[in-house]
This record gives sequence, C-alpha cells and structure tokens, in this order.
Amino acid sequence: MREFISPATQFASLPSSFTMRCGGQLAGGRVGYQRWGRPTPAGDNLILILTGMSASAHVTSHPGDPTPGWWEAMVGPGKPIDTDRWHVICVNALGGCHGSTGPASTRPDGSGAYGLDFPVLSIEDVADASAHVVRTLGFHRLACVIGVSMGAMSALSLLARHPGLASSHISLSGAVHALPFAIAIRSLQRGAICLDADWNGGRYDEERYPDKGMATARKLGVITYRSALEWDGRFGRIRLGADTPFNQESFGLEFEIEAYLDGHARRFVRNYDPNCYLYLSRAIDRFDLGEAYAGDAGQALARLDIDKALVIGVQSDILFPLHQQRQIAEGLRAGGAQVRFLPLDSPQGHDAFLVDIAAFGPPIAAFLASLETTRPLVAPAIGTTSPPRQPVAVSW
Amino acid sequence: MREFISPATQFASLPSSFTMRCGGQLAGGRVGYQRWGRPTPAGDNLILILTGMSASAHVTSHPGDPTPGWWEAMVGPGKPIDTDRWHVICVNALGGCHGSTGPASTRPDGSGAYGLDFPVLSIEDVADASAHVVRTLGFHRLACVIGVSMGAMSALSLLARHPGLASSHISLSGAVHALPFAIAIRSLQRGAICLDADWNGGRYDEERYPDKGMATARKLGVITYRSALEWDGRFGRIRLGADTPFNQESFGLEFEIEAYLDGHARRFVRNYDPNCYLYLSRAIDRFDLGEAYAGDAGQALARLDIDKALVIGVQSDILFPLHQQRQIAEGLRAGGAQVRFLPLDSPQGHDAFLVDIAAFGPPIAAFLASLETTRPLVAPAIGTTSPPRQPVAVSW
Repeated sequence: MREFISPATQFASLPSSFTMRCGGQLAGGRVGYQRWGRPTPAGDNLILILTGMSASAHVTSHPGDPTPGWWEAMVGPGKPIDTDRWHVICVNALGGCHGSTGPASTRPDGSGAYGLDFPVLSIEDVADASAHVVRTLGFHRLACVIGVSMGAMSALSLLARHPGLASSHISLSGAVHALPFAIAIRSLQRGAICLDADWNGGRYDEERYPDKGMATARKLGVITYRSALEWDGRFGRIRLGADTPFNQESFGLEFEIEAYLDGHARRFVRNYDPNCYLYLSRAIDRFDLGEAYAGDAGQALARLDIDKALVIGVQSDILFPLHQQRQIAEGLRAGGAQVRFLPLDSPQGHDAFLVDIAAFGPPIAAFLASLETTRPLVAPAIGTTSPPRQPVAVSW
Repeated sequence: MREFISPATQFASLPSSFTMRCGGQLAGGRVGYQRWGRPTPAGDNLILILTGMSASAHVTSHPGDPTPGWWEAMVGPGKPIDTDRWHVICVNALGGCHGSTGPASTRPDGSGAYGLDFPVLSIEDVADASAHVVRTLGFHRLACVIGVSMGAMSALSLLARHPGLASSHISLSGAVHALPFAIAIRSLQRGAICLDADWNGGRYDEERYPDKGMATARKLGVITYRSALEWDGRFGRIRLGADTPFNQESFGLEFEIEAYLDGHARRFVRNYDPNCYLYLSRAIDRFDLGEAYAGDAGQALARLDIDKALVIGVQSDILFPLHQQRQIAEGLRAGGAQVRFLPLDSPQGHDAFLVDIAAFGPPIAAFLASLETTRPLVAPAIGTTSPPRQPVAVSW
C-alpha cells in the first residue's frame, strides 16, 4: 500500500479523534490540499474544488509541483477559474491515497498501513474533512464550492452539513445519488479487484499486487467516463497492425480501442491504491443526499442555503445521466437559489469537463464573474440595456 | 469443458473436412438444430432463426424438450412466429456448446475436447454451417431468415455468402459490425475469463473452473444487454436488508441491482462453456460485413439479394445502438429491397426483443403475413381501399 503525494501538497490535521459518519474514529488524521492565488483582505474570493474519485488536489501546475494538473486548462492565471482573481483550494478526498488519510496511510502507531482496518468511509466524511480544511485556514465563507463527478456529491454533502459555509455552487457531472447502472458498474469494478488473488484480502504489497484486477476496474471506468459516440469517431474499427487481421492468438489485443484502454490501465494500476479505490467506490454508491428526507433528494436540495448555482451535465454521460444534473438544478431552484442549468451535447461523456474546456470554460468564467466580491466586477458593455417590462434574464 | 444439449436437438453432419474462413479445417463436425411446424409441399414456408451469442436452438418448447425456450412468447402455435403456419428451424451457432461443434466438443479422435485447439472461428463459419443445415434438410429457399443480436450478423453473412437462399430477412438488434464501445465491453469480458487463474489457459475442468471470470463476464454482459432506464424503475436504490444500511463488510453485495446481476451470473457460469464464450465473443468483434468492400458496409448491404426486410432496433440499446439498425435498413433499401425500419422506444435495451413481445410481436407477425407463400394470405378487411393517386404504403 502506497500514497502518491504531490510535493505541492500542504496538510491540515484533523481533530483527534475525527468521528466518521458510520461510527468509526480516526486518530491523527490529516487532509492534504493545494492552493493557488491569494485571498483578498476580506477573504471573500475563496473557491473550493472537490475532486472526482481518483483525482488528486493537483488541479493545475503549482510552484511546488510544476507538472500539469488534471484541470490545467481550466484553472490558472487568466483561465476560466482565474487564480489571479480567486484563491483556489483543492482538497484530496479523505480515504484516497494522495495525502489525506486513507486505507493506504500509515496508522498513528506506525504499525503499517490501515488497509481494510480503515473505518467505513462515506462521502459525508469527505465533505466534513474538506470543510475542516477551509476553517483551519481561517476562512468562514466560500465564494463558491465547485464539485466534479464524485466531488459534486461531496459538494452537495458539504452544503447540507455546513450551511452558510458556501454562498454559491458549481456542479459538474454530478448526482444526488448513484442509480443502478452506475452502482452495477462500480460493483463490477470492486469485484474485479477483490477477485484478483493478489489483492489477498487487502494485504498486497509491491511484489504481490492486484495489477490485473486494478486494470479491469480502470478499463471499465474509462469505458463509462467517456462515450461510445466519441470512440466511434476516434477509433472506429482500426486494428493494431493492419497486416495481421486474423492472427491465431485469439484473445490478445487486436483493436485500437483495446490498446487505448490497456494504456489507461497501465498508467493507473500502480498509481492508485487498490484499497482506497474500494473505499471511495463504495462510498459513492452509498451516498444519498435525500437520505434524511426518506430518499427525497428534492427536499434535501431545496434546503441547501446558497444564493446561486451553475449546474452542467452532458447528454452523452452514461454514468450520471443528464436527468440527474437537471434534478440538482431544479432542486436548488426550488429552494430559492438563482440557478443556471446547462445541458451540453459534448460527445465526451461523463468526463467532458476535463476535456471540453471550450464548452465548460466560458459558462464557468461567466458564473464566477457574476459573484459579488470586494474586487470590482467588469463594467457592463456600452449600449446594452435591459429590455423594459421583462424580467432580466440570468446572463451567466 | 462441457456441452449443454437439449434433448430436442437434431444433428446435421458437416462435410468433412469443413473449411473455416480463417483457414482452419474441421473434421467430423456437426451442427445441432431444432425444428417446429411442418413444411408445405412446395417447401416455401421455411423460417430460419439465428441466435444471439449464448442462446441455444431451443427457441421455444418442443415435444422433445417441453421446457420453455428463450423466445417462448414469440414462437409457437398462434404466436407472432406461428408454427401452425411456418416451418421454423433454429440452428445452434458453430463454436458454441449447445450441440454444434465447438471448443467444448470432443475431438474426432476421441482425445478430449478441442479447447483452444479449435480453429479460429468467424461469424461467416456460423453462417455457412447454418446454410448447410438448410440444404441438408432438402430446402433450397428460406421464406425468411431471422437474426437477433449476434444472429443478425450471422444472418447478414448468410445472405452475403449464400445469395438466393433467403427471400426475406428480419433483423433485430443487429449490426454490420461492432463499434468501439461494444468491442471494449467484450474485450473486458474475455479479459475477465482469461485472467481467472482457474481458466488455466483454456484447460479447466469441473473441479477447477473459472467461475469468477465467467461471473464477471456475464454481469458485464447483462449490464449492456439491458438498459439504465429499465433498472432505474426496477431497482432504484433498493438495498438488500433494509436494516443493514451501513454494514462493515464493505465490499459485499448491498444493493438489489448487485443481487440481480449475481443471480444472472450464477445461472450462467456453469451452463455455458468459457472457451466457447471466448471464441464467439472474438468472432463478433472481428465480423465486418463490409470487409470485402474496403469496410463499406453500405455497399455490402446493397448487394444482398432479398425482396423484403424488417429491421427493428431500440433507442435504449447501448451495445448495438439504434443507428446501426438504421444503417442496415438503409443499406438493404438502397439495394432495392422493400424495407420497414422500426425504431422502438422499449426501455429494455439490446435484449428488448426477448421481453417486449408487445412491441416486437405484431410487426413481426405482420411482416411474415405479408410474405407470399402457397398458403393463402388473410383476405383484406372489408371496406379498406388504397387511397387514389398515392403510393401504397408498406403496411407491415
């Protein structure tokens, strides 16, 4: 078991012990995060980003870690999430292996990694640990909490459990809970890891490691993070080696799409901890924002105390389908928030926010520009006037 | 390695040796089939059904095997494919384990099963073996060849390789070739089987058997045969045992959807041969009707010599998406066939033809009723007349 910690990571200690939602206690826990930009004197330009399941807090390059981050084109000076204007914090999910305490972390008594002795994890714990970082840094109000994929769940949980902490929210490819297709996929991913004999009940090491199970889990993940439509154009039926159309080695890689998945798997397998993967995967399946309202997520959403929200989803997302983002938007609107719901027809599926910066960047930038902070907003363009007697449309 | 042969199965010997498309020779091969109804004296009421990957020729109950078949509601006396009128033959796919020679069959010299020594299989071989059965039974013309899923590929291949053998065609949830998403899914299914240590390079037995790999493959199959939409309504987020919402056993089955998949897997794992699964799965990925036309399936379809076709697909099919059925319909129409293309909004996905009999049955019955045979057609209803000066619409 290993952690993979960017040199730009800073740490906040969790209160000891930290009570987890399902009853476990975490002693000596910590949360890893990265930050960019500077806070205003009023501390009103803070943005918190909550990540997808296996992403780290290394959102974008950093003086302490100049390698490109997973959202390099979105976050940085002059970019849609402009670090010249905003003080951006991204937190590593509790239970992951990027610096926040999780199954791959060493126990407080130094006796090796937690492994499966780590307490049961929930998205609520991820949210609480993230809120703790914000407060530890001396802030009491986020201008915006941005969540992507699993992070969108973490953000909703944070809004529910820490009312008043954030005044606005951007939700990308999110959901109030997982539906059966997504649960089925994640169940198979976990199954593939657990069925690998080298997982060994969670007691693997670098010598004996569940490479095969992790590869299967990752390939299945990539299949559901992207979309069939994108792949039709990108890979079609292209074969590896045009001169061996019908080799006798029947069950090896033969099509480019297979090699593509294999490449993704190879890059992932030894760079993410299998037990952390299992814990976070299960936490996603269990999360249900509506749980306190007999499963009525609409009620839970309507009670979230935010002023504004931007909710974006894509038509080609098979993991968290578009109607789930619509549900978030409508629920927040019913609670009185000013909400823009933006359904996109990006062909890239669930992970479109990572790659279709042209579609996601401008509405995110416009939304952030609309937030009131102590830094001046851009003056309205000359010649534009609101039409009389009509409600002013939400322009971000 | 085992075969699973219905007592209603009859056998036709393949010519010895049978040359397979990729160059292999099969000595002493046979094809298993079942038949229902009686042929007319003119032999013009013959329907051939070609099956999906793991289905057997036991389409419907039979005097020799009264257990329900996989299409019990569709095929039988008075049913949409009416065995009082039609002489129906269904052939077990060559390479499978239901009676036609395949990797689980005993070698001609009696020295155990073929296993991975079975020659490379292609959909064209399945088609050729099926055509051989028809001719062996003394027929030279099929009133209709019906193909479902993989069987729709086999049917297209039969039409291409045996021109004149069939005068009409019904294609359900079919495709001229697999696209990357479907290839990726099947690649993962094969990978799961091959990665199971008990697969043992294809040399398993009842004691040491790749149960886990087969279970994973089957679950993944079921995920893609049905649809997210259907499951949302059917399973939602229902848990197994309402009183254990957060058990500590983190990675076992917890949601009904997981138990559903597990049940499917348990019923399948020991009732289909793993090597046969691998062979047919790979054959599907490799099949490309347009191969002889530099990949232009449209050209290949336009050259198929049939009079009429009915092509049905469903909007919720993620394995062979609807545009692939439209492609078949348009290609056949371009070749001069009278084609009805019927896109359905069944929520059941790829396998809708198995369950949504209400939607699939009537158009299939109407199509078959429109075929000219020596048995009289139903007289037109009194009072119906074609509107003057307008082209007569295809009414089936």
